[in-house]
Amino acid sequence: MFGLIGKMRAQPGKRDALLDILAQGTEAMPGCLSYIIARDPEDADAIWITEVWDREESHRASLSLPAVQAAIAEARPLIAGFDSSTRTEPVGGVGLAS
Amino acid sequence: MFGLIGKMRAQPGKRDALLDILAQGTEAMPGCLSYIIARDPEDADAIWITEVWDREESHRASLSLPAVQAAIAEARPLIAGFDSSTRTEPVGGVGLAS
Repeated sequence: MFGLIGKMRAQPGKRDALLDILAQGTEAMPGCLSYIIARDPEDADAIWITEVWDREESHRASLSLPAVQAAIAEARPLIAGFDSSTRTEPVGGVGLAS
Repeated sequence: MFGLIGKMRAQPGKRDALLDILAQGTEAMPGCLSYIIARDPEDADAIWITEVWDREESHRASLSLPAVQAAIAEARPLIAGFDSSTRTEPVGGVGLAS
């Protein structure tokens, strides 16, 4: 499996709007086993995204999906930056969509 | 929802054994919506654990479950340390066990 743990920064005051956009179009992403978006309670503009995919290729392919492309375009003006992005190799757990 | 993103370090050469232990007893943790363990491909001893709970209290209560207590006791000698632990407020996504 292929995983990502990323910290993104919203423009000031735009985090909730950005979270709404990030939540769109995530139902039908082939190979996506987990995709969770979260606020950072200690940092008003920060968003955490943790993802698990069956394979890295599935993640890469998802970026071309129309719904994801639309979400990216809508989200871009609300994004102030990316603090970190860590690649992981998930080995198991609870809540991995089959 | 309550979330955690943690980076743990195994004793050298003990990561896979530690991952096996961490995977034990995770099926029946009331309120656990997601619990994913992963290797860090760039750091041979590092493990990432990303968790989502319905409430912080459910996470705290899980630490008293016999299966979790047993796993903690078994894992302790294989743990070299904890690099980071970030609290999050998950808002949604894919792969949240209901």
